[in-house]
Amino acid sequence: MTETDRHTDMANAIRFLSMDAVQQANSGHPGLPMGAADIATVLFSKFMKFDPTEPNWPDRDRFVLSAGHGSMLLYSLLYLLGVEDMSLDDLKDFRQLGSKTAGHPEYGFAGGIETTTGPLGQGLANSVGMALAERMLAADFGEELVDHYTYVLASDGDLMEGISHEAISIAGHLKLNKLIVLWDDNDISIDGRVTLSETGDMLERFEAANWDTVRIDGHNAADIEAAIERARGSDKPSLIACKTKIGFGSPNKEDTSKAHGSPLGDEEIAATREALGWTHEPFEVPVDTLDAWRIVGVKGVHERAEWTKRHDAADVQTRAEFDRRMRGDLPANLDSAVEAFIAQVTEEAPKVATRKASEMALEAIIPHLPEAVSGSADLTGSNNTRTSTMTPVAPGDYAGNFVHWGIREHGMAAAMNGMALHGGIIPMSGTFLVFSDYSRPAIRLAALMHQRVIHVLTHDSIGLGEDGPTHQPVEHLAALRAIPNLKVFRPADVVETAECWHLSLLSEDGPSVHALTRQGLPTLRTENGGKNRSAKGAYELASAGGEAQVSLFASGSEVEIAMEARALLRDAGINARVVSVPCFELFEAQDADYQASTIGEAPVNIAIEAAIRMGWDRFIGSDGIFIGMDSFGASGPYKEVYAHFGITAEAASEAAKAALADE
Amino acid sequence: MTETDRHTDMANAIRFLSMDAVQQANSGHPGLPMGAADIATVLFSKFMKFDPTEPNWPDRDRFVLSAGHGSMLLYSLLYLLGVEDMSLDDLKDFRQLGSKTAGHPEYGFAGGIETTTGPLGQGLANSVGMALAERMLAADFGEELVDHYTYVLASDGDLMEGISHEAISIAGHLKLNKLIVLWDDNDISIDGRVTLSETGDMLERFEAANWDTVRIDGHNAADIEAAIERARGSDKPSLIACKTKIGFGSPNKEDTSKAHGSPLGDEEIAATREALGWTHEPFEVPVDTLDAWRIVGVKGVHERAEWTKRHDAADVQTRAEFDRRMRGDLPANLDSAVEAFIAQVTEEAPKVATRKASEMALEAIIPHLPEAVSGSADLTGSNNTRTSTMTPVAPGDYAGNFVHWGIREHGMAAAMNGMALHGGIIPMSGTFLVFSDYSRPAIRLAALMHQRVIHVLTHDSIGLGEDGPTHQPVEHLAALRAIPNLKVFRPADVVETAECWHLSLLSEDGPSVHALTRQGLPTLRTENGGKNRSAKGAYELASAGGEAQVSLFASGSEVEIAMEARALLRDAGINARVVSVPCFELFEAQDADYQASTIGEAPVNIAIEAAIRMGWDRFIGSDGIFIGMDSFGASGPYKEVYAHFGITAEAASEAAKAALADE
Repeated sequence: MTETDRHTDMANAIRFLSMDAVQQANSGHPGLPMGAADIATVLFSKFMKFDPTEPNWPDRDRFVLSAGHGSMLLYSLLYLLGVEDMSLDDLKDFRQLGSKTAGHPEYGFAGGIETTTGPLGQGLANSVGMALAERMLAADFGEELVDHYTYVLASDGDLMEGISHEAISIAGHLKLNKLIVLWDDNDISIDGRVTLSETGDMLERFEAANWDTVRIDGHNAADIEAAIERARGSDKPSLIACKTKIGFGSPNKEDTSKAHGSPLGDEEIAATREALGWTHEPFEVPVDTLDAWRIVGVKGVHERAEWTKRHDAADVQTRAEFDRRMRGDLPANLDSAVEAFIAQVTEEAPKVATRKASEMALEAIIPHLPEAVSGSADLTGSNNTRTSTMTPVAPGDYAGNFVHWGIREHGMAAAMNGMALHGGIIPMSGTFLVFSDYSRPAIRLAALMHQRVIHVLTHDSIGLGEDGPTHQPVEHLAALRAIPNLKVFRPADVVETAECWHLSLLSEDGPSVHALTRQGLPTLRTENGGKNRSAKGAYELASAGGEAQVSLFASGSEVEIAMEARALLRDAGINARVVSVPCFELFEAQDADYQASTIGEAPVNIAIEAAIRMGWDRFIGSDGIFIGMDSFGASGPYKEVYAHFGITAEAASEAAKAALADE
Repeated sequence: MTETDRHTDMANAIRFLSMDAVQQANSGHPGLPMGAADIATVLFSKFMKFDPTEPNWPDRDRFVLSAGHGSMLLYSLLYLLGVEDMSLDDLKDFRQLGSKTAGHPEYGFAGGIETTTGPLGQGLANSVGMALAERMLAADFGEELVDHYTYVLASDGDLMEGISHEAISIAGHLKLNKLIVLWDDNDISIDGRVTLSETGDMLERFEAANWDTVRIDGHNAADIEAAIERARGSDKPSLIACKTKIGFGSPNKEDTSKAHGSPLGDEEIAATREALGWTHEPFEVPVDTLDAWRIVGVKGVHERAEWTKRHDAADVQTRAEFDRRMRGDLPANLDSAVEAFIAQVTEEAPKVATRKASEMALEAIIPHLPEAVSGSADLTGSNNTRTSTMTPVAPGDYAGNFVHWGIREHGMAAAMNGMALHGGIIPMSGTFLVFSDYSRPAIRLAALMHQRVIHVLTHDSIGLGEDGPTHQPVEHLAALRAIPNLKVFRPADVVETAECWHLSLLSEDGPSVHALTRQGLPTLRTENGGKNRSAKGAYELASAGGEAQVSLFASGSEVEIAMEARALLRDAGINARVVSVPCFELFEAQDADYQASTIGEAPVNIAIEAAIRMGWDRFIGSDGIFIGMDSFGASGPYKEVYAHFGITAEAASEAAKAALADE
């Protein structure tokens, strides 16, 4: 058997497994795996540093299938390479409930799935974060421990999405030369030929972003090999435009959108078998072809063994720290650093914006948290995410812990996902809360993938004032609380801010956002007691001082207003308690008794938040009183804006009195 | 006075008005107006077809300040040009509550504000829609009536945002040669020099997207004039990179990020006055300079008069139709077309997916609605947004009513905003509901701007099945319902689908989304009665047949489940009613009596929606029973996925029985 024949057989094994699985599921995308099988075969058989027996070892090359709809390409590869938790039965279960072989690759379902992809452009942007994480960890620990490539298979759709612009700009700027993107350049999208909607020059576009580029025949193994070899030697990130035929081998559907997103049909699969000379039954891979694939893995086994030697030879402290960071364990002295900070500010009770409080907390935390990588989408001085000890990374210089992401919220968030997925880093970065809309698709994926990614979202309400409704979040707290497995923190003061930071760092299994004010807020938690009260999501900050007639619930900057309303009510002889609600999600995680006692049984329940009501009925009931927004905001000095929309202590206390009078 | 001196004075008038207003507000962005004053002066004095006495006449050139933070540039221009509703007092009220001169330009606040900008990249993408609308209307009505340019002033931030990639790709592909982007290429962003995060070649990037490009000195009036002249003659859209100094004229802050986003301070303004030789008081514009500006407007008055002659000379039918479309009035026979369709499907009661029902409704509507421009982000066959009579536009050929937007949800949505803002077109286009996250920032702006933009969002729940959680919206209905002034329709069958389409077309003052199923649904509204019952947002679809023990509330595909649960309960001798809830927002607009009677007084209240609970407490109370999702979905055949998550008629009826037993 010639090497060419072997390559062809190996690639055809991917093609037929993919066709067969899609056919069996009667659902899925055969076209991409068939078209990109040659690319994947060369990449994995000649280059990928990947040990199927230990698919998650730290210094593996990463392979990101950005075009996640072609999931059968990845599943076929993992099976053929011999990854233990990807069996032939798993392939046969493609797209069935509970299977590992979901419609789109889902992180954590099997070794070798580096990220959850499907929403286009996300995988590409994840890969930028992975490649940056690799360089930053290499700067921290040396190339003996960290030295690998990040490969991406991207489709036309990945490159049409706006996020691709942000991603490639960042990568080109930062000279992430170990990032190699293989573009499945097949000229086909769902609506038909790509020329229906695209006539730009992709290579020129990438060159303008400081990438190396080359165009090759994506079905010519030698060309693919040469192009990857060249890319590995480049001092820039590389785009390899692989001209392919979608549905390669299918006599009647190849090179048409018909091959993209539906099963080929038994008849066409039979015709493809004939056309490609594949005489085997469905899901049958001949022994010699399977052997050829399994032998590929041996290289990875050796590479891992070499790495293990280097790891064992490293000095014990470096090794321990590297292992800790890759496991995602927090440093032992973090808790005490946070607690000391909280004790101090409880004492000092400063009046500061929570964005400033966040910076103060980070000043205390960051020296103890070398895995923290902070940043901002060009709002560093506004987000307060850069502390005094942070240094930014720069093109070719990765010894830092801060990233100037540029005005690229979406690319930033997706790259942060990639950094978290890579491991060894806790990404945290900032923009305005209103612009979480720009990064929302990536925040959602962090939640779906259970990644510890932390977003600092400042200027969190109409309290930002003059910038007006385009910049004033009104619906964003609700919209973020709506995302499953995302913790939305909105602390009321410096103490809660530090508590919430601690909780987001402890949140190993999901992302967090911190919604923080522009405007100054007093310290309300002047008694601490050494307990993280935010950990329960909501708690009684001030008691009624008698049987409660009114319960006031609030978050963030409106807790101050609730406390003032309580004072006004007390002046009127009315007992009101205040419940601070820094995190809905953590409150939901408490037991029913705690929830019931925190909500209490006051006849009048009022929630105050400078945002829409949605979600607050949980606390106040659907007949409760809500003091907040039901429209977009307005441009003006912030205190006037608050007054204009009636979000004041007076309004709350008057509403409480009126409701009590009605009782 | 030389022409150069006059130009300098005119530009300096912009500079000082901007500086003074920002200083007076003690808030705002002086740097851009100072840096871009020369560009704006040349553009408006030499080219803009703009009549200050009638700033909204149909065939005016559009000017989009994509860099909305530089709002004082626009306000100064409008005042200097003599637009009636922009006075010197308005400038003095910059950023004050209730003023026209909001922090960022807000559409509708004054003539000449073509769009609301501030969130970066949006204005640029709006302008693509405006330029496309111009070409499409010219194809419909001839260049006698429609023949104008769209000019954009864009900042570095606009061009870093991902949406800019989508926008310029569409524009370049479609050869929108009357779109001219003036890039304020000042090398400064908030964090410092742009090179902190960007080192790409912008001209090469635009050329790769089929744009003409040129780089000029943005402070040289002759160069600016020549470049715009050249761009007007191009057969491609044009980028003019104008090298400028942010904060031009400020001795200590020019060319630094210090000039960007805060007042210069009295001292620095005094120094700038001296440096630029401007001897006038704050807010004082010398008479000859004001005259020079006011004379500019005369050209526009004449141009409009010429256009009015052509308009009057057009045949009466063309003129009437053009005027109708520009006013945004619907055709007279639309209502009867919708009603005939509804009568027919009420009779035929087909079982179809609501995405298919939407296509059927559009088949009935589109022949009567020439202003409809449909499209899809490369999911045409899935969104069912292209009817049999639609023809796509293509590069250089704009005689069509369908746009293949490509895989560019965000750019599409923002361009749709631009089309609606331009007038004469009702944009409607499609993607999957889950990808509304990608277009969300633009949907928000449509709501803020009160624009009739219609989004068809198919595959609206776990009911899409095998594609799995990356493609299954769970939180998106709640997140969209959270946006003020956006109507979220989720029809239950073909009848409601047609009703909701009618309502979204009638919604002149705001955008709509239609959340539509992939899976087939029976016709439930088999009695019609000639009334649009969806218009009230929620209505009793099936009565309890006796005193109601259970109220079942549901939307979309879950109304069928609610009806089945009602039948199961009836079998058990329990009276249950079903309320269909196609639109929360319209329900909120009803009077309290209607709301109370629709919610009813059954002891047990259950809501069913294959999505999260958030928002449903309005109907069922915080103690009501919710049958839906509280996590991400799963990949599998859709009926199995529904069963897996317990969203079934059986689950609902069992929950009702258990709750009744507890009563």
